[in-house]
Amino acid sequence: TVDFDPTEHPHRRYNPLIDEWVLVSPHRAKRPWQGQVEALDEEDKPSYDENCFLCSGNTRINGEVNEKYTDTFVFKNDFAALKQDTPELHSDDPLFTMATERGESRVICFSPDHSKTLPQLSVAEITAVVKTWKAQTSDLAKSYQWVQVFENKGAVMGCSNPHPHGQIWAQNHLPTLVQKKQKAFDTYTHNYGTNLLQDYAKREISDEHIQGERVVVSNADWLVVVPYWAAWPFETLLLPRFPVQRMTDLNGQQESSLADILQQITIRYDNLFTTSFPYSMGWHGAPFDGEKHPEWTLHASFFPPLLRSAQVRKFMVGYEMLAEAQRDLTPEQAAQRLRLASNEHYKTAGQ
Amino acid sequence: TVDFDPTEHPHRRYNPLIDEWVLVSPHRAKRPWQGQVEALDEEDKPSYDENCFLCSGNTRINGEVNEKYTDTFVFKNDFAALKQDTPELHSDDPLFTMATERGESRVICFSPDHSKTLPQLSVAEITAVVKTWKAQTSDLAKSYQWVQVFENKGAVMGCSNPHPHGQIWAQNHLPTLVQKKQKAFDTYTHNYGTNLLQDYAKREISDEHIQGERVVVSNADWLVVVPYWAAWPFETLLLPRFPVQRMTDLNGQQESSLADILQQITIRYDNLFTTSFPYSMGWHGAPFDGEKHPEWTLHASFFPPLLRSAQVRKFMVGYEMLAEAQRDLTPEQAAQRLRLASNEHYKTAGQ
Ligand SMILES: O=P(O)(O)O[C@H]1O[C@H](CO)[C@@H](O)[C@H](O)[C@H]1O
Ligand SMILES: O=P(O)(O)O[C@H]1O[C@H](CO)[C@@H](O)[C@H](O)[C@H]1O
Repeated sequence: TVDFDPTEHPHRRYNPLIDEWVLVSPHRAKRPWQGQVEALDEEDKPSYDENCFLCSGNTRINGEVNEKYTDTFVFKNDFAALKQDTPELHSDDPLFTMATERGESRVICFSPDHSKTLPQLSVAEITAVVKTWKAQTSDLAKSYQWVQVFENKGAVMGCSNPHPHGQIWAQNHLPTLVQKKQKAFDTYTHNYGTNLLQDYAKREISDEHIQGERVVVSNADWLVVVPYWAAWPFETLLLPRFPVQRMTDLNGQQESSLADILQQITIRYDNLFTTSFPYSMGWHGAPFDGEKHPEWTLHASFFPPLLRSAQVRKFMVGYEMLAEAQRDLTPEQAAQRLRLASNEHYKTAGQ
Repeated sequence: TVDFDPTEHPHRRYNPLIDEWVLVSPHRAKRPWQGQVEALDEEDKPSYDENCFLCSGNTRINGEVNEKYTDTFVFKNDFAALKQDTPELHSDDPLFTMATERGESRVICFSPDHSKTLPQLSVAEITAVVKTWKAQTSDLAKSYQWVQVFENKGAVMGCSNPHPHGQIWAQNHLPTLVQKKQKAFDTYTHNYGTNLLQDYAKREISDEHIQGERVVVSNADWLVVVPYWAAWPFETLLLPRFPVQRMTDLNGQQESSLADILQQITIRYDNLFTTSFPYSMGWHGAPFDGEKHPEWTLHASFFPPLLRSAQVRKFMVGYEMLAEAQRDLTPEQAAQRLRLASNEHYKTAGQ
């Protein structure tokens, strides 16, 4: 009889954060790919583009003029999915449940330089982005229970402007995914008396029989792993190595070390397939509901779509939409490939 | 004060099948789109392609030769995500849970005609597809608790061969999404004593104040609605108008009427943007675990990505991956547009 080998045999892993499984089929990586290939965007962009709605001093589609900014710049999304003044309604028929939602959407420009992306900014410049995330979160937390900071990078991730930017959507109710995490954190703390993500971070970096095999990069304050339950091929989870519930609780030193780790992981991403690596990333921290939430740990997730190369992505389609997520290499294999990628950005390497 | 208007004001709707919410931002449809456009594939295909792995009589990548088939043809997936002979393993550390999975993956060719897709087949030809789904489900149900029938259509849905075909993945455990539905059906029947999807179907077609506004097409046995909680812009739910738990319980008359409704909905899909409409679709019925499952209703879902045109899709990215699904038009608006689409396929209309 053959022994079970996770790099050979189909298996499922459990994501304790959202109570979902993922099917891991490592042998599938061998199949040839004859399907859709993504467009390559290797064009060098100018540092300033007069037609860009996000460049410093330019006029946006609604006639507003951007500040002449030098580090980051925040404005109200011109086509916001959430609005402040929605009239109240709530219908709770069990089959036809609807509820009004109030909120705000803002855009954050990461840099005036149109040609750059996060991994091409200096640690000081990325620190300015972190400080902006923190200040915005703190501002919106006065009015909303939930503040969702995120970035869509790359055309394949629905990003319609290459200028380096992210978004913040704030709203009254806890979104679905956050409700699930709240439940998971509560249950874990109730069962074990400790904090789920703090325990997970410690075990990923120190457990003897695990030996850091899913760790990609780390510094004194932060850790990036391909989580044991990753769904996307090169998905990662960014965790603090100290107890912290919210972005707004970071101190100056932790902001700089966060900028350092963000630079490290995004450089490795770009180097993996020598391309500006597309992803969606975003932050989850404890809700702003007046409670302390010791069961929470602030964390970020990166969800990148690429699987085999700059042009071949993973499709989360039929089986994935109807049954559960499925992946074609193990999280440990993905972590190893990211660790082996250079820590110097391919565009500036050797300069 | 302004009254709440679901076609103007952001709101959330609740999906009782999977305990998730969706954010509806109908006013967002007005924003201009400057992002990625999808490739158009309007090329006329030959009825037989000697390089196609699925055409009748051709040799596949692994050297096996396809039967000279005349209606449908089923074979074992050459790059199956699930295998029959996986060794046993189960680890249930709360943060590192893994379990072996056993199963099988098969491919179903819908027709020997390489140039056609489902909406271009006759009702008799689609009936042959339905009978094949049923026979395959019945066969795999002998060995597995779960049999997932699905189709990925179009390159944008990760489909790597235009030859009309679908897949079946069968496995030991209930996948995540099915576990959620099992829970929802159990809870509803426990609370109300009736069947969730049978109640929903009845109310969508007959409730006075709802007035069929989400119904797209129907016949004596079946009904297609854009569900109240649809996440994808033109997502639909295909429901039986009679009590039935599983595909394997359909009689001959119900198979034909199912073929008719499948033809109706897929023709409207193609006509909506005058393109071969991409989607993932699939079937959910009661598990094959020896129980009766009166709380279940057999149903199919269509998840199509297009939003504005044949070339502009909806991206389920940053906010959607981190918070919850978001849509840019109401389910009622989507249903109306599909109802207004012609019931004669645009490629043969007027011939
Ligand atoms: O099996 P196929 O058609 O090669 O592959 C396609 O469908 C599968 C099942 O939905 C997905 O896992 C793949 O990502 C997709 O490319
Ligand atoms: O807000 P944007 O960048 O125009 O739009 C993009 O991000 C949004 C939030 O993740 C998504 O809802 C859109 O589908 C996507 O195209």
